[in-house]
Amino acid sequence: MPNVKHMKWWGWGVEGVGFHHEDKPGMAPFVIKAIDLDLNEAPELSVDFDALDIPEPKIGPDLLALLTDIVGADNAISEPMDRIVHTYGKSMRDLVRLRNGDIPRVPDIVLYPADEDEVQQIVDAAVDADAVLIPFGGGSNIAGSLEAPPGETRPVISLDLGRLNKVIDVDETSGLARIQAGALGPDLEEQLGQRGWTLGHFPDSFTHSTLGGWVATRSSGMQSDKYGDIAQIARGLRVVQPGKLLVLRPLPGYSTGPSVREMILGSEGRLGVITEVTVQVHRLPEERVVLGYLFPSWESGLDAMHAISVSDATPSITRVSDSRETGFSFATRKKKPGFSLSSMISKGLMSVLEKRGWDLDQVCLSFIGYEGSKEHVARQKKLVKDIVSKHGAIVLGKGPGELYDQKKFDTPYIRDFLLDRGAAGDVSETAAPWSQLKTLYYAVVAAANSAFDEIGVKGWIMCHLSHSEHSGACLYFTFAFKFSQDDPLKEYDVVKQAIQQAFVDNGGTLSHHHAVGVEHAPWLAEDLSPAGAELMSGLFTSFDPKGNFNPGKITG
Amino acid sequence: MPNVKHMKWWGWGVEGVGFHHEDKPGMAPFVIKAIDLDLNEAPELSVDFDALDIPEPKIGPDLLALLTDIVGADNAISEPMDRIVHTYGKSMRDLVRLRNGDIPRVPDIVLYPADEDEVQQIVDAAVDADAVLIPFGGGSNIAGSLEAPPGETRPVISLDLGRLNKVIDVDETSGLARIQAGALGPDLEEQLGQRGWTLGHFPDSFTHSTLGGWVATRSSGMQSDKYGDIAQIARGLRVVQPGKLLVLRPLPGYSTGPSVREMILGSEGRLGVITEVTVQVHRLPEERVVLGYLFPSWESGLDAMHAISVSDATPSITRVSDSRETGFSFATRKKKPGFSLSSMISKGLMSVLEKRGWDLDQVCLSFIGYEGSKEHVARQKKLVKDIVSKHGAIVLGKGPGELYDQKKFDTPYIRDFLLDRGAAGDVSETAAPWSQLKTLYYAVVAAANSAFDEIGVKGWIMCHLSHSEHSGACLYFTFAFKFSQDDPLKEYDVVKQAIQQAFVDNGGTLSHHHAVGVEHAPWLAEDLSPAGAELMSGLFTSFDPKGNFNPGKITG
Repeated sequence: MPNVKHMKWWGWGVEGVGFHHEDKPGMAPFVIKAIDLDLNEAPELSVDFDALDIPEPKIGPDLLALLTDIVGADNAISEPMDRIVHTYGKSMRDLVRLRNGDIPRVPDIVLYPADEDEVQQIVDAAVDADAVLIPFGGGSNIAGSLEAPPGETRPVISLDLGRLNKVIDVDETSGLARIQAGALGPDLEEQLGQRGWTLGHFPDSFTHSTLGGWVATRSSGMQSDKYGDIAQIARGLRVVQPGKLLVLRPLPGYSTGPSVREMILGSEGRLGVITEVTVQVHRLPEERVVLGYLFPSWESGLDAMHAISVSDATPSITRVSDSRETGFSFATRKKKPGFSLSSMISKGLMSVLEKRGWDLDQVCLSFIGYEGSKEHVARQKKLVKDIVSKHGAIVLGKGPGELYDQKKFDTPYIRDFLLDRGAAGDVSETAAPWSQLKTLYYAVVAAANSAFDEIGVKGWIMCHLSHSEHSGACLYFTFAFKFSQDDPLKEYDVVKQAIQQAFVDNGGTLSHHHAVGVEHAPWLAEDLSPAGAELMSGLFTSFDPKGNFNPGKITG
Repeated sequence: MPNVKHMKWWGWGVEGVGFHHEDKPGMAPFVIKAIDLDLNEAPELSVDFDALDIPEPKIGPDLLALLTDIVGADNAISEPMDRIVHTYGKSMRDLVRLRNGDIPRVPDIVLYPADEDEVQQIVDAAVDADAVLIPFGGGSNIAGSLEAPPGETRPVISLDLGRLNKVIDVDETSGLARIQAGALGPDLEEQLGQRGWTLGHFPDSFTHSTLGGWVATRSSGMQSDKYGDIAQIARGLRVVQPGKLLVLRPLPGYSTGPSVREMILGSEGRLGVITEVTVQVHRLPEERVVLGYLFPSWESGLDAMHAISVSDATPSITRVSDSRETGFSFATRKKKPGFSLSSMISKGLMSVLEKRGWDLDQVCLSFIGYEGSKEHVARQKKLVKDIVSKHGAIVLGKGPGELYDQKKFDTPYIRDFLLDRGAAGDVSETAAPWSQLKTLYYAVVAAANSAFDEIGVKGWIMCHLSHSEHSGACLYFTFAFKFSQDDPLKEYDVVKQAIQQAFVDNGGTLSHHHAVGVEHAPWLAEDLSPAGAELMSGLFTSFDPKGNFNPGKITG
């Protein structure tokens, strides 16, 4: 077996690591209040690999021999576990279907090429044999970008890029690093860090996602305000296509027709297999700090983030949670008992808040990050303090920021924790102009609550703003509810669809950084207009008329 | 005739405005030394509209009647002058061909639609009749993006967007303005300025180019370090396609597959007619200043611009000229006689430079711009001063910056001035990573000089760096030589091709912001790799199988 790390077949992260509530005394009271789920009852569900009815691989002996010959027998895997790991990503739908044994189209073989040349041979052989190729990075996708069409009759190959995990070269003058597409976040940051550089791209999935996956889905990292989204970061690309290699050199700007670079970005494997990306890298900053702030209300927090975005200040992170997400953050704190603002902040500050007449149920927690020289950080903190103070905020200091930094990659584990207990916990994010954000927010909350009513459950939805741009920002929603019947995905779809529809109906995009896959494809034509979706379909069809490259994704 | 401003049929700008050397005493000695051209001899060439042999319009009566009915007789023009104005852009090739009467395919009709609905009717009628549609903005393109294929047998329609010139709406919360595609730079800045906003997009062509043209060619403005290129500025788009309207809402970010927005950007009319763009706008800054600096050498100037780009400083303009362009700048100054550094700067400074041991022939002039609050500008100036001082620079102050601001849109007039005197003066720009810029620069200069030798002329090439990005910048070359024989374009092509080839051979792009058209199309596959060019061709063909939309551009 190749030495490639994978997540649990049934959930997020590595075996033996999970979310626990016992050390977070505020959690159980919060959850029972929020979605009527008693965490102190024993988990009802469990997962059993042996119970899965895994179909036999459907691949002819000639193609199998050819592919095995290309990568070697050790890197052409048909074992059931590896095939299951490569069947889906990690969306709620994926996890529920795995738990239910709903696996109609498991890949027939998983290939681990050693290099670009082997990828080229695989692509050529697969297209020649009319097989289906699905590139696979960390497997963290939550939009259905990794699954084969359920009725696919052709051989399905999962092409795992995990062995292409090296930082090949750093152009220290230009701040450009050539990195293989299969490198996981921690692996590439470690290799860059040894040379004094950072990519600065830290999505929630960072620990378990790859550079190639980020490019293929147009990912965003938490510090995008400074480093940009992956669409800005990725400058050069190498993409294996049938019989040829598409090579885009790293250019700071260009005027060469419709951007081919921006066609590959977000292409989810439909335009070939990304093998290498040349990315912008930055010197590790002299100072990096994340400060916590409290706002008296969601509106004041949004207004402050907006004011920062049009000011001369240039923080690396701008983030504010609504009052519900603020409450959740407080409830998942370790050690100190109970859910109350007083457990978060000092008594002195409490009396200040009370004197100011704050409604403590409306308080919103914010994190703002700063990076650069000590002088730059000091100045940015001051500029931001002046702005947020005008919007009524109180500076909490470094403590909450450090907590945020510690916990930032843990959130996805909560989904499995809830699923174990018969509840859904999932996320949907969008982006819209500043003028639309408040309307959009209330519309999404209302849509989710209507959906909860429709299925007759007590549901929960919370939100934060992040990724501020000049003309708008991302709203990132998390929602949860306890399944009430035997078909959990049916209930889940009611809520998910209501939220997605509210996005596009209120000036938002179907996804800010989670991609389209099959789960968001129904809203593509509403997002881009039918003509926009048709233009994209034409691009895919002209490149791949037989649909060998991850068919069915994005355009449905 | 519709009230739409056009440039001279034979050259840049409006009738009655041109470049003169009599008030610039340093110019004639400079030019004779540089390209062996005596400006004091009378111009040899002249232009004569009546001498043009303009072919009759080739358009059937049914289509003519249909189109005339759509826009009204006043806005469907077949007059020779209007057709000639719409035959070409303003490239060197275009101007020479016009002067030589080389006009094999003049548009058969020029249409001036009043609104998007009329554009839709024109598009539908034209495609239905298998006619060719060429959208036309300000006509300033210098890459051959506006000409019909010489052998085109179908009717050719020039679709002038000049009547769509309004700022429709400003979303003051989001900093987003809906502007019609045909608005010229000064017109839209005036309309925005009245409301306290600016687009901040100031290409050299600003006075005579349109928003739609900027989007269709991926334009860059001088202040792109602050405001971004048009590819960042343009957020929402409306594009008329056959039987449908492509509408992209203004989004700050999105993860919706290959970027359709970035397919329209740079599409040069091949994917439909852009009718409206929603752009990021900014409040007019409290302070705006451009400072001049002198560097002891080109290398020190480049290194300083690089250092600024990776520092905490955020100027709005970063620009440095090589020693030859510095010499040219000094030579084109008004009033003060002679070409010498001492006419530019004080005697006190001169003695400082001499004390420092500067080689005055190697001195490089730089402009760096600052915008924002007074405090922000003051801090940026200090940050930049610290950096440029480390690279040996001397601050010249506001005077040269104000001169730069006054003259910045005048440069294109010099081309006609030289053509009148039998000489070529033209530009080619590229972009590359910082690590490549010096090699690229010397390779381009060497290639141009070889080309001058090949055709046996004394030629001139000079350059500036502008548009700094994290990982690279634009190098903008200007070259000139006196034609030595009867076929000036043959000589021009030798030089132009040598420069373009040196770009792509040395890590540069074929164009940073002037587009591809037909003139740069021969280098597309070298720039994007053959696979990249094929992907783009596939996009065009799938959208427009019969080639009705500006055929032959970009992909040849």
